Amino acid sequence: MSFRLGELAELVGGRVEGDPDRRVESVRTLENAGPEDLSFVTNPKYRRQAAQSRAGALLTASPIAGLDKDFLLADEPYYALARLMGVLYPRERLTPGVHSTAMVEDGSEVDAEAYIGPYAVVRAGAEIGAGAELHSHVVVGRGCVVGRDSVLYASVVLYPGSIVGERCILHAGVVVGSDGFGYAVHEGNHVKLEHGGRVVIEDDVEIGSNSTVDRALLGETRIGAGSKIDNLVQVAHNVRLGQGCLLVSQSGVAGSSRLGDGVVLAGQAGVAGHLRLGDGVQVVAKTAVFKSVDAGHTVAGIPAVDVGAWRRQQALVGRLNEMKKRLESLEARAAATDTEDEGDG
Amino acid sequence: MSFRLGELAELVGGRVEGDPDRRVESVRTLENAGPEDLSFVTNPKYRRQAAQSRAGALLTASPIAGLDKDFLLADEPYYALARLMGVLYPRERLTPGVHSTAMVEDGSEVDAEAYIGPYAVVRAGAEIGAGAELHSHVVVGRGCVVGRDSVLYASVVLYPGSIVGERCILHAGVVVGSDGFGYAVHEGNHVKLEHGGRVVIEDDVEIGSNSTVDRALLGETRIGAGSKIDNLVQVAHNVRLGQGCLLVSQSGVAGSSRLGDGVVLAGQAGVAGHLRLGDGVQVVAKTAVFKSVDAGHTVAGIPAVDVGAWRRQQALVGRLNEMKKRLESLEARAAATDTEDEGDG
Amino acid sequence: MSFRLGELAELVGGRVEGDPDRRVESVRTLENAGPEDLSFVTNPKYRRQAAQSRAGALLTASPIAGLDKDFLLADEPYYALARLMGVLYPRERLTPGVHSTAMVEDGSEVDAEAYIGPYAVVRAGAEIGAGAELHSHVVVGRGCVVGRDSVLYASVVLYPGSIVGERCILHAGVVVGSDGFGYAVHEGNHVKLEHGGRVVIEDDVEIGSNSTVDRALLGETRIGAGSKIDNLVQVAHNVRLGQGCLLVSQSGVAGSSRLGDGVVLAGQAGVAGHLRLGDGVQVVAKTAVFKSVDAGHTVAGIPAVDVGAWRRQQALVGRLNEMKKRLESLEARAAATDTEDEGDG
Repeated sequence: MSFRLGELAELVGGRVEGDPDRRVESVRTLENAGPEDLSFVTNPKYRRQAAQSRAGALLTASPIAGLDKDFLLADEPYYALARLMGVLYPRERLTPGVHSTAMVEDGSEVDAEAYIGPYAVVRAGAEIGAGAELHSHVVVGRGCVVGRDSVLYASVVLYPGSIVGERCILHAGVVVGSDGFGYAVHEGNHVKLEHGGRVVIEDDVEIGSNSTVDRALLGETRIGAGSKIDNLVQVAHNVRLGQGCLLVSQSGVAGSSRLGDGVVLAGQAGVAGHLRLGDGVQVVAKTAVFKSVDAGHTVAGIPAVDVGAWRRQQALVGRLNEMKKRLESLEARAAATDTEDEGDG
Repeated sequence: MSFRLGELAELVGGRVEGDPDRRVESVRTLENAGPEDLSFVTNPKYRRQAAQSRAGALLTASPIAGLDKDFLLADEPYYALARLMGVLYPRERLTPGVHSTAMVEDGSEVDAEAYIGPYAVVRAGAEIGAGAELHSHVVVGRGCVVGRDSVLYASVVLYPGSIVGERCILHAGVVVGSDGFGYAVHEGNHVKLEHGGRVVIEDDVEIGSNSTVDRALLGETRIGAGSKIDNLVQVAHNVRLGQGCLLVSQSGVAGSSRLGDGVVLAGQAGVAGHLRLGDGVQVVAKTAVFKSVDAGHTVAGIPAVDVGAWRRQQALVGRLNEMKKRLESLEARAAATDTEDEGDG
Repeated sequence: MSFRLGELAELVGGRVEGDPDRRVESVRTLENAGPEDLSFVTNPKYRRQAAQSRAGALLTASPIAGLDKDFLLADEPYYALARLMGVLYPRERLTPGVHSTAMVEDGSEVDAEAYIGPYAVVRAGAEIGAGAELHSHVVVGRGCVVGRDSVLYASVVLYPGSIVGERCILHAGVVVGSDGFGYAVHEGNHVKLEHGGRVVIEDDVEIGSNSTVDRALLGETRIGAGSKIDNLVQVAHNVRLGQGCLLVSQSGVAGSSRLGDGVVLAGQAGVAGHLRLGDGVQVVAKTAVFKSVDAGHTVAGIPAVDVGAWRRQQALVGRLNEMKKRLESLEARAAATDTEDEGDG
């Protein structure tokens, strides 16, 4: 690639401070960029690192004083970076068609503009929309729907009846629609509850590699539009995620819990079953949520409490030794007073 | 579907209080059920929700006063629900036979009543029992055994020598028999220990999507009969689970630990290596078990302690600020006494 | 198998104390070994168990007094065991060649000494080295490299451009090179950052079943030579692991963090993003690392602190009830003094 800086500014809706004719060969990290490269500072805390970068040009919100570089300025520099990445690294679109080794059953509907890769399996009653891509070894069960322009990477498995919206991305190894973990105890045995529900994934959802979403016992497990799920995340039966939720890697949501819109679970966080997390709730990494949380709150800890309370608790736990010593000092003083009193007596 | 309520009562061994001729179109959640539907209250804490449900009929342990509904009563309502689900949503059984694209090696034994799906691989020396189902892309390594009526969903991988009992269900992406994580350090390098053992999964075990069970270094990793394992669970080399254990999603058991019968690991719990958990031990979600636990105990916390102790600890941690203030108050008082004493002097 | 004990001693560079002509039929655990078997005590804490073992011979560092057994002595007994396992359970090497059902695209380079299994997919521009093995359903994307003697077990997926060194082992279901979890928020939506980087896995790396390694946004996600990664581990975009790291099951490293050489993450530990962990850092199981850690330190807790401090904290938390009582006792005493004072007044 080779672009004029001014040209990139136009592509991302930004403006140049410096030389708009500067050639940009590549976008690189601050550490790896050279004079021919554009780098970026989307978080002010990396400004110091920017000063040490050899990058010829910087994408940032405002010029950084004292740096002899050209700037590509954008009000939302991280969003500008996203637009730039889309231009420089456009996702490869596969040529539509059904690979000769794929197994598409009669009674399924595969749009002529869809791509069905090697050894993929599309069962009867499934519908695959225009522009959808099913990579190698994908399995789409009976009665599933994969919406327009959705991409299922290698080895994704959709159990029967699963619904995937438009423009979704399911990374390799994702499993959608397996049975929820539900058993009735009878005479000491665990008797399986057959699951009659399904999974619905709304539009613009991305799910990371090897994550799992279980079908509902009855009704639906539902992932709201625009939600993004990282790798190795568990979404249990009957869970409902609102729109625009973020579930970071190795987090999990237990059965029947409901997350509002814009809820964020940081890495390795867990939400117990049958809870409600209101809109905009944020859960700190490694937190265990055992109670419902009202909208707008941020929680942390095991069990989860308000993040402010958690920080104060942690600080106090860190001062426990000091408290113990102060307690001992008071006790010693009291003992001394006793002795004095006895001496007085 | 359409059933008489009385007919459903017979199917699940219950009885009707109200109109046995009421037509039931479907089973739905309290929230989604309408007048034509049966819903259920298997936990008394949902009785209030039941009052707001539009369900025409309710499966429950005892009639709920003041509700104008027909009741299907069962002593074990959750078990009755399980039986009902089995009737209403029977698992689809696939027509026996080997799919034309499957690769079944010479020297394997596949029962005529087994189903081998598209692109499945069955290696020499493997045995597949009657009624077993191997879905698309399943791999059964050399010398493996899959017992009668066991189902391996898409992309399950059995490494060579793995044994799966009868009536087991392995969900998509499960890996059984990969090498355990064992290395000897020599001159600063980690030297792999080749694993000569295997995995044995006893009868009636279910394992959730993308979970992993490693082979033993020597001997066996063993999952006891009737144990149920959720999604994304790790069972390390040489682990032994007793009968009827429950391992909830994202929990893990490290090498060589032994769990008795009926042990429950809640979500994201972990058990360190070389421990013993007695029969009936319960481990609260997110707990880290670093020591063996005697039969019948419930443990929580990091590190795990008895759940009662953990609750008291957590309550005390929540009161640390109050304790600090009381300590300060005593100190202030002591300082005042000092001043008084000095004033006296 | 049947070996003379003296012969085994030679194979592992050890020596016999006892009868070098003793026949060894198998290597078994202390519990399972019989008089014909060799067992091992690589950790002194199992010496008591050794006394109860029926094993005829024991591999250990030094003779155990009072045991009527023959000894195979080695300075590094665990390393000797690793060598022994390699002899007794050598990894099966598959006959080179491309399986008739595999799909190897034109424009890829597959060494004549490589094995490409059933239904495997090798895309254009990929290179597969001599002695490499791609098991069933493996997908190697465009432009990937798999080095000499590396083994990719069933259903491993390499996204385009991924590099795997020599003598690596990737267990079933591993996904390498999926997009990192990166979005820019714009007008309330999460806009995907297309990822232009790649994953580089250096030589002698082993990765456990269903683990995931994401590609970098720009540049590389890199796994240093000799590092070993267990099952269900997450390595996020732009992460760099040094040489000889150990990441135990269900641990995870968030984006852009850098681990030095020989870093150990125990099970279910997590490292937040943009951190640095120096050489030799050890992270206790279930720990959440929120700050960078200097070389050589061992950390524990949520949030992580030095392991010594964590142990003291935990001990103090366990004594909180006692502290509370002591505080109450001082308060009662103070109140009594008040009363006395009042009585005096």
